[in-house]
Amino acid sequence: MEALKFEVKKVEKDTGARLGVLHLPHGDVETPVFMPVGTQATVKSMTTDEMKEMINSYIILSNTYHLFLRPGAELIKNAGGLHKFMNWDRNILTDSGGFQVFSLSKIRKITEDGVEFRSHIDGSKKFMSPEDSMYVQNCLGSDIMMAFDECAPYPSTYDYVKNSMERTIRWAKRCKEYHKNTDKQALFGIVQGGMFEDLRKISVKETVALDFPGYAIGGISVGEPKEEFLRILRYTAPLLPEDKPRYLMGVGTPDYLLEAVLSGVDMCDCVLPTRMARNGSAITHYGRINMLNACHTEDFTTLDPDCDCYTCKNYTRAYIHHLFKSKEILGARLLSIHNLRFLVNLMENVRQAIKEDNLLKFKDEFYKKYGYLG
Amino acid sequence: MEALKFEVKKVEKDTGARLGVLHLPHGDVETPVFMPVGTQATVKSMTTDEMKEMINSYIILSNTYHLFLRPGAELIKNAGGLHKFMNWDRNILTDSGGFQVFSLSKIRKITEDGVEFRSHIDGSKKFMSPEDSMYVQNCLGSDIMMAFDECAPYPSTYDYVKNSMERTIRWAKRCKEYHKNTDKQALFGIVQGGMFEDLRKISVKETVALDFPGYAIGGISVGEPKEEFLRILRYTAPLLPEDKPRYLMGVGTPDYLLEAVLSGVDMCDCVLPTRMARNGSAITHYGRINMLNACHTEDFTTLDPDCDCYTCKNYTRAYIHHLFKSKEILGARLLSIHNLRFLVNLMENVRQAIKEDNLLKFKDEFYKKYGYLG
Repeated sequence: MEALKFEVKKVEKDTGARLGVLHLPHGDVETPVFMPVGTQATVKSMTTDEMKEMINSYIILSNTYHLFLRPGAELIKNAGGLHKFMNWDRNILTDSGGFQVFSLSKIRKITEDGVEFRSHIDGSKKFMSPEDSMYVQNCLGSDIMMAFDECAPYPSTYDYVKNSMERTIRWAKRCKEYHKNTDKQALFGIVQGGMFEDLRKISVKETVALDFPGYAIGGISVGEPKEEFLRILRYTAPLLPEDKPRYLMGVGTPDYLLEAVLSGVDMCDCVLPTRMARNGSAITHYGRINMLNACHTEDFTTLDPDCDCYTCKNYTRAYIHHLFKSKEILGARLLSIHNLRFLVNLMENVRQAIKEDNLLKFKDEFYKKYGYLG
Repeated sequence: MEALKFEVKKVEKDTGARLGVLHLPHGDVETPVFMPVGTQATVKSMTTDEMKEMINSYIILSNTYHLFLRPGAELIKNAGGLHKFMNWDRNILTDSGGFQVFSLSKIRKITEDGVEFRSHIDGSKKFMSPEDSMYVQNCLGSDIMMAFDECAPYPSTYDYVKNSMERTIRWAKRCKEYHKNTDKQALFGIVQGGMFEDLRKISVKETVALDFPGYAIGGISVGEPKEEFLRILRYTAPLLPEDKPRYLMGVGTPDYLLEAVLSGVDMCDCVLPTRMARNGSAITHYGRINMLNACHTEDFTTLDPDCDCYTCKNYTRAYIHHLFKSKEILGARLLSIHNLRFLVNLMENVRQAIKEDNLLKFKDEFYKKYGYLG
């Protein structure tokens, strides 16, 4: 039996937005879903109990590159796997390490075999091949693994993207051949092709030909203008098989999430909610708020009156402002709780709207408050 | 009716250790008690719900000096008081600000009237008199307030300590005269006198003559050798009225806590558990542990097998080590939970031992594991 069974419950007629369930080894996950990121085996500032009870999260993401460097794949394997190591008994998706190898480390050489790079932690020389990525992810024991890819930077030339995309397909094939325990860990393929529709089409065709249980769209939301993001998203997502989950990587602002769902995407992830939180920024139903701003000093109202999170139920803006001015850890905690819950709750509301054939109206009403003009 | 009613339930015959209850506006507090410190209206890294559910704390301390400077007394008054501002509905003790004025800020001038100093935050000129301290603590609305005192540094000359102690008594008188709502906030006097027994005797006599509902011992555990600490503690504590709570300020290591209780002290506080936690240090039944030490890298056992805290029940040393190596906030959180629970639980066990006339044996057994040789 395969690790993943994906069930499409409904496709909204007007939009193509999908309602589904991922049946996975560590429980069911309703889609569309936002997956919080626990880069170094921890969603920053949160306990796993809080991820369940306060955030209502059923799947989180963790980063192969970071865990490969520290504490190391074997250590986590010896701990009994990543779930046990970090005390999380729900689902985990691990990325391939590719994105961080290319974005965080100093690349020394890309060959057909793999990538030679220097660790961003201590500068030591490392190497990662598609097989290494599979080995590490097998050690971690994630429920969903990602094929080792190159996410071409934006902007890149047509030739660079074409070569990179073709190598990514060859690497995907090697990943699939290496990965054996498909009953415990589902391996997703990743579509690349940059801003070029013909390359996207080839990438989809060749990747889907390898027959993965799910497909990710990589290489967008990497710094390109929003129109470019939308053009490639709307071109690529509908090309993917209808009976397999579609995962848009690295997307976390409310407007990008809504556009993803409207294009038929089922899964998204982003470090945004916790990163913004540490910088004192809150995502609310009425737009973004910088809690360090002096206007909050004596504001004894709640952060977001429309939010059901622990922070909004228990604390005032004045108190959160004080915590940030005083550089208290609790400030980052309270905003992390709020921002994570905001996005997970947004997707809960999105699912409800799809159930009610109401997603376009939901989007309009959301933007009316949120102040989005695009 | 007075804000505080103190009930001595038992005095252990062999030792003089006391079992009691502080009946306070925000609930009963069993003594001897360790009070965690929430300097800036937050026990560092902890939510108030965690202080209840994970730590089992019924009273915390907050710092008048810090809150006076930021966010300011009036702001907290406007928020509805410190309890409401920080979302804590159990008891709060506030110190007088004196200790921090003298230890953290740059003193400009001490006069009979009060202290002129520069804020440690922005260097601005500030002034605090005994009346100011009362005003601020009235604004905060703490359940127990402390009289404004000077804690003489160690070492100080006899003449310095004598003058300082005598002024502290005059200041205590002014505090008592200023503070009106004694039905809502109990004001404690503070005994000073440095390392000089005759000055301690005078300070006790004069302070007790002012008739406070409780008394603190200040000016020890300020850097003096342990023998000096014990000499003054054992000399001073028994001089205090038997029917009033005795509070030893700034004590938080297990051995100092045990010595305090054995000398008849009822209340202690210290920043130690959260400060140590942020530095990666754990207080365990088997002594202190530095979690950054490489020996924990692959240690999949629990932090302290004899501890009942959330951290020890859910996480391994290897994981906590990884969090500290990776500079993850959750590391400081997990050790804060452990260290706070350790000290609060130690006092729970101390109370049980007093009930069973067993404190000396408890102490011996504790030290046998803890590795104390003194």
